[in-house]
Order: sequence, then C-alpha cells, then structure tokens
Amino acid sequence: MSFPHAHLLGIEPLAPENITAILDLAEEYVTLNRSDTKHGDALAGLTQINMFFEASTRTQASFELAGKRLGADVMNMAMQASSLKKGETLIDTALTLNAMHPDLLVVRHPQSGAVDLLAQKVRCAVLNAGDGRHEHPTQALLDALTIRRAKGRLHRLNIAICGDIAHSRVARSNILLLGRMESRVRLIGPPTLMPAGIEEFGVEVYDDMRAGLDGVDVVMMLRLQKERMDGGFIPSEREYYHRYGLDAEKLGYAKPDAIVMHPGPMNRGVEIDGEIADDINRSVIQDQVEMGVAVRMAAMDLLARNLRARRAG
Amino acid sequence: MSFPHAHLLGIEPLAPENITAILDLAEEYVTLNRSDTKHGDALAGLTQINMFFEASTRTQASFELAGKRLGADVMNMAMQASSLKKGETLIDTALTLNAMHPDLLVVRHPQSGAVDLLAQKVRCAVLNAGDGRHEHPTQALLDALTIRRAKGRLHRLNIAICGDIAHSRVARSNILLLGRMESRVRLIGPPTLMPAGIEEFGVEVYDDMRAGLDGVDVVMMLRLQKERMDGGFIPSEREYYHRYGLDAEKLGYAKPDAIVMHPGPMNRGVEIDGEIADDINRSVIQDQVEMGVAVRMAAMDLLARNLRARRAG
Amino acid sequence: MSFPHAHLLGIEPLAPENITAILDLAEEYVTLNRSDTKHGDALAGLTQINMFFEASTRTQASFELAGKRLGADVMNMAMQASSLKKGETLIDTALTLNAMHPDLLVVRHPQSGAVDLLAQKVRCAVLNAGDGRHEHPTQALLDALTIRRAKGRLHRLNIAICGDIAHSRVARSNILLLGRMESRVRLIGPPTLMPAGIEEFGVEVYDDMRAGLDGVDVVMMLRLQKERMDGGFIPSEREYYHRYGLDAEKLGYAKPDAIVMHPGPMNRGVEIDGEIADDINRSVIQDQVEMGVAVRMAAMDLLARNLRARRAG
Repeated sequence: MSFPHAHLLGIEPLAPENITAILDLAEEYVTLNRSDTKHGDALAGLTQINMFFEASTRTQASFELAGKRLGADVMNMAMQASSLKKGETLIDTALTLNAMHPDLLVVRHPQSGAVDLLAQKVRCAVLNAGDGRHEHPTQALLDALTIRRAKGRLHRLNIAICGDIAHSRVARSNILLLGRMESRVRLIGPPTLMPAGIEEFGVEVYDDMRAGLDGVDVVMMLRLQKERMDGGFIPSEREYYHRYGLDAEKLGYAKPDAIVMHPGPMNRGVEIDGEIADDINRSVIQDQVEMGVAVRMAAMDLLARNLRARRAG
Repeated sequence: MSFPHAHLLGIEPLAPENITAILDLAEEYVTLNRSDTKHGDALAGLTQINMFFEASTRTQASFELAGKRLGADVMNMAMQASSLKKGETLIDTALTLNAMHPDLLVVRHPQSGAVDLLAQKVRCAVLNAGDGRHEHPTQALLDALTIRRAKGRLHRLNIAICGDIAHSRVARSNILLLGRMESRVRLIGPPTLMPAGIEEFGVEVYDDMRAGLDGVDVVMMLRLQKERMDGGFIPSEREYYHRYGLDAEKLGYAKPDAIVMHPGPMNRGVEIDGEIADDINRSVIQDQVEMGVAVRMAAMDLLARNLRARRAG
Repeated sequence: MSFPHAHLLGIEPLAPENITAILDLAEEYVTLNRSDTKHGDALAGLTQINMFFEASTRTQASFELAGKRLGADVMNMAMQASSLKKGETLIDTALTLNAMHPDLLVVRHPQSGAVDLLAQKVRCAVLNAGDGRHEHPTQALLDALTIRRAKGRLHRLNIAICGDIAHSRVARSNILLLGRMESRVRLIGPPTLMPAGIEEFGVEVYDDMRAGLDGVDVVMMLRLQKERMDGGFIPSEREYYHRYGLDAEKLGYAKPDAIVMHPGPMNRGVEIDGEIADDINRSVIQDQVEMGVAVRMAAMDLLARNLRARRAG
C-alpha cells in the first residue's frame, strides 16, 4: 500500500496510487461495518481528537464512529463553547491539544488554509474535515469509492458536478481527485456561482443543465447554501430549482445508467427532486454516507501506520 | 427468555412475559452495576447511537452508561445543533444514520409517533426514549422493576398516578404496563389535566388526592411542566401544591408501607414535599434512577440478541 | 504510595507525602502518554462522570483523556443544558448521578464549597476540577510536577505568582501546595486584586513586578478575567500590561534560568508577551498541559485503588 503521507490535508498532494490505497483499504472496512462485530483494533492505544470549529452532524459522526470502531480513544472538542471565546488563538489551541499527545487530529475550520497551518504546529497526523472553500478530502474520497463501486472504475467516466461550485470545497476536492484519476469533469451552474478561471483545472463549464448532463455517467449535485440566495447569487429557490434542480426530465439527458449523488444534507425540491433522491435504481446518496465511515477508517488507519513507523524509526 | 421483538417502541406491543423477561435480566445488571467491575461485553462490537431531539440529561445519561458498560461503541448526536437546522427531514436524518450501520438507535422526539415512523426506515433495533405524549417505555419498565423489588410482585397492587396525566407519556406507558401486569391503576389530578375517555383503559379517575390515595400500595407522582401553568391548566404552584402536592397528611391515606415514586427531575414544594422525597423509608426515587440503567442494559441486550439471531438466520 | 484519601477536593487536606505520591505516579503516566500505546487498564470496569457546571475546554478534555486512556467508561454531562434548568437542585442532581453508580465524579462548579458539599452526598470518589475561588487541586499538582521536572525539586525554591490573586483558585491551591513543600511564595499584583490578610499564609506580597521577580526561580502568571476590568479592579488592558504583564525587561529581574508558567488560556499582550510565551528556553506552558493529563491519571488511579480497597474491606 502506497501512502507516504504524514497528514491528509487535501487531495492536491495525493498521487493516484495514494488514492487507490485508501479506497482499497476502505473496501475491507465496508465489509467490517456490515458485520455484527464492527470493531477492530487498528487504532487501539491511540488517541483521536475531533476539533470542529464549524458544526457538522454527519461528518463529525462519521469520523467519531470510524475512530471508535477501530479502537481509538476518541474525544470531541466543542470548539464553539471553547477557549476561543476567551480570546485564545488557533495556534495556542493547537499547541495545547498537541501537548495532550493526540495521535490523530480531525479538524474542520471555516477558514481556508487553517488546517494546513495547524498541521505545521503539531506532532500528530492531521485530517482535514473541511476548511473554508479549500478542500474536503474525505468527501472526495468517499465519492470516489461510491463511484468506483457503482461503475467498476474511476477512469474514463464523464462526471457532472452541479450547483454552487464557487463556494464548494466538496467540488474543489472532487475536481482534483477525478482529474487525477483520468475522468472528465463538467461543471454546471449559474455563472454567479462559477469561479473565474476554473477552466484551468481541465474541466468543461456549462450553465445549461441539459447540455451539461448530456451523456454523463455520474451526476453529482451540490448543496445550495441558503445564504447564497440572500447574497444575490441566485434569484429564488423556485427559479433555481427550475433551472438547476435535478428532476426526471433533466436527468433524462444523462446516460440511462447514470448514478445520482449528493453530499447531504439535501434541500429536497431545491437542488433535487425528492423522488430522484429516493430512487434506489439511480440514487447512491445513502451509499455515500456508508462509504464515508469506511474511507475515514482507511485514512486514519494508513496515517496511524505511518505515525508508528516514523516514531519507531 | 421471551422477547420476540425487533424494537422497543412502547409498552403497547409487549406481552406480560416480555415485560418479565426484561425485568429478570435487569436484575442481573443491578448486581453488575453495584460491583467494582461494572463492564460486560454483551454489546461488544456493536454501535449504539443516541439521537435526542429533546434535551434530557438523565435519560440520555442512563442510556449512554448502559451502552458503555455493555461494551458498545456509543455515540451521542446533539440533534439541536444538527442538520435539522439545515432543513433536512427526520426521514433523511434517519436514512443517513442507518447508512452508518448502527445496531441500536435510541431516539427521543417531541412528536408522538416520530419514533415509530423512524423505526420503519432503518435496519437496526430502535428504542423509544420518549416521543411526545405517546410512550416512554423504559421509564415504565424501570418503575415496574422498582415496584417489584419493593413489593415483591407487580400484580394485585393498587397504584395511584398523580398529577398531569394528560400530557404525560410516563403516565401512558405506566398505565399500559401496570394494567397488563394485573395491577389496578388510579389516576389523580385536576380535571383540566385528565385526558377525556381515559376510563376506557380500565383505570379509576379521581380529582381528590385523599380519596384517590386511600389504601394504595404505590404513589407515583408526575412532574409538572411549568408551561402548563401559563397555559391555564392549573391556577398557581401554591394552589397546585395545596390540592395535589404530596405531603405527609395526604400520604397518610395510603397504606402504611406505601412507596413514593417520582420520575424526576422534581419540583420540590410543587409536586412533592422535600422531606417525603428524602425519606428513605418511603421514597424509592433514587432506586428508580438505579433501575433505569439496569433496565436499559437489559432491553438493549435482548434487542441485540434478536438482531444477531435475525442477521445470522 | 501514601494516599489515604477518599476524594481529591483540594490541596488543603494533603500531606507532603500525599503530594509526592501523586507526582511520582504521574511520572509513569508521562512516559505512557508519550508512547504509541497510550492506553492502560487501571480504571477498566469503572465509570467516570465529568460534571462541568462551568465550561472549560482544556480541563474537561484533560480529565476525559485521562479516564479514557486508563480504560474507564467516561461520560460527560453538559450541565448547562441540564435538569438544573428544570429547577432541580445540586443535591438532587448529585443523588441522581450517585444512583447510576459512578466510581469517579469530576466536578467543576462556580460556587466555592459546592464540590465538598456534593462529595458528602455520594458514595464514589470525587475530584474537584475547580470550585469558585476555593481550590483547583489538579492545577496545582500539574504545576508542581512541571516545576519538579524543570528544577529537580520542589523545596527551597522562590516562586512568584503574578496577577489576579484575589479571584484565583489556581493561586490559592498553588500557595497551599508550594508552602507545604517548603518553597517560598511571593504574590505580585495590583492591591485591588490582592486578598486581604493573605500574608497569614506565609507569603510575601508585592505590587511591583521588578521587586517581586527579583531572583525568583519560577514565574507563574495567572489568567486575567476580562470581567475584572469592567469591575473597576484594573484601569485597562494596556495599563495592566505595562505594570504587570510579563515582558523581557521585567523577566530580566528573575534568575537567568527561571521558568515561565501560565495555566492557560493566555491573553497574549495582556498578562504575557507572546515571544516569552513561545520561548522554549523559558516557557514551560506546553509542559503544564502535558503534565495535566498525567497528574489526572495518577490522581484517579490512586483514588480508584482506595475505592476498591474500601469496598473489598
């Protein structure tokens, strides 16, 4: 298994074989999680701390379960109610945690780059659980595992990512990962939600859903942040759904066996029609959640192996 | 042990022998919890998720300790700060959790019937930790175990339930359980807090404490929700205490060895006189808390056995 | 090991050899925490409950990690969102928890004496994690361990405690401990933040930093509570820093090898210059955090041994 990294800060630094290493190990954890004894000892004796500076029920829960199932001592830090209120800086918080000797530090932060900065200050393995508009690598990895299981491969696929591209770290990490695995990515969304110069990443840009979805293998919807509407990026929920919401008619332009994805939580009737979300022949939205736990177990397991090897050496 | 159920959603579907099965196993856990090694492995390898849509210190703590002491990987979901804020539906939340492969899902929800609905959507065992005005089965079971230990039996007892019957899921589950175990239940409270047609459940209704308590074996006080007072159901705390609060004079009408119960947290001087609550010869209020952990261990253990058997079969 | 106590409520009741017993055992846990298998079984089978009536990220995290690393079943109670809102008294909350059979109860409370009161009502070992202005014994113990490791001893040292002495339980516990270990303590701070009659504890009082720091081995800064400024105790942050903030010039009066301590979280530029806080040749602030986990492991281990012996006897 090729995973020569001390941290998982983003997809950017990962080579294709590193991505494959995580996905292959995650497959084993999918099997474990479906069994009656969903508990291993890969992280036994190690301490995992989850520091979420932004609330996130599902991502935090996924990391927490991943760590507990691998036997780690897991601690959640509620950073809203924390010392930050008392004026402590991010770096002081990081140094304080570091002094408690965690082995794995899972961090979500509203500012792009905050997790990278923090990783430079601590001696343990850091996993980025989402930083600003920058990266959300485990989301891209769980999406990749979901696609690979549904389509049998990650290369030579046509994949459409639809919605608020500009503000989405999910989109950014997926663009990086899918490009690296030699799939072709199309971005579809209103021009106000499309970042300038994104074509440099080798993607095709569309503002029409029908043209963008034409013949794709995978339709990946993004969550629409309500605050974008107030911000004037889109006219209204109704208008957005009419033009960019995934309904049966628009989905008809994709390949007949195209799969539908969404990182959750969904706004039914805004980004996606509820019936499509629930269609077990098309939607792999629940699979994404399941793969999320497995991918996080795999990533933490690989990082812990490197940590132990580095310390032993 | 006869416990042929996939979930514990209420007392309603339980036969008397199912109730006895839980109580008998709970007795073993009372012994374990009093020992120096209060940790077993009945739930080892399994995942328990506590989803509390209403805050509840003691019930959540009781379920959390029960699961941890049986070796489960336990995760609390703070559902106030959760995706629900982001517009996700209860069903989507349930499906998301289900995809993480929990084995035991403990749910409290402010709406009657929400837990039943949720149980239909997931593949794991669901325990109702209180839903609206509907049921709170583990509370009734812990009350039953407390009574059985104090009185030596559950049948042919006279049991008074006093206070806000109309809004109480505790009362409802207790009425069902005690009726099923062939005890006679009397309900005492102001007519404004007594549900219409309650006599159909085979109970006797009183609005006078002295008449209602006359000769009973068990006095079960209910918690008075402060919001009932604003709502015009009762005149004032003082007036309520005068008429329905349990004091020494009123308790004098019960049998000399009658026990006093309260599900907690207590409003001393409103529902009950502080001295009676603390009288170790009469009050079994602390025993109720102790039995709560044991009953929840027993219920989760039995459900996990069924789950494993069903999966193996 | 000499530790004949049922609780750790303060430094006040500890003999010098009791303090040494905790510090010696903590040294072993420092080694464990630095290893790759930072997990033992000294508390296996026992239940630890953390009840924090005041929020405290770092102290709660330190106790939580300490318990988990020793194999306890650990539960945090968020007491703000708790039954206290529903009008339950501290004693009722304590009795309720007691009925759940915890073995170790870690309590922080805003009122001086609340933890002692609570300890009288429960059957388990109670650890004071800070009560009002009274005591914070594990902080004093971790400070002592940090000093002993840096200086090789705890006796015959000159130690300055600087800042808001009057409102500080940290200062109070440290004064008691350092006096008992035969070190000489100087208190430095504005007269408005100095408690009346403090000289009776055998300390020297200064309101000038340069005079107070002259020749000391240890400089222990305290956290300045922002509310003291509103309360008129000090003129302004700027003025406070000018007179009492630790900068290079003032530190020059201490011994050349004097160490700098702070219990955290720091207000950089108010109590202490950021460069001094980060100077690894002088500052032992991160060591204090590290020692905190080890000291709490040692204290809980010793209390659990006593608990088991008492129950067995």
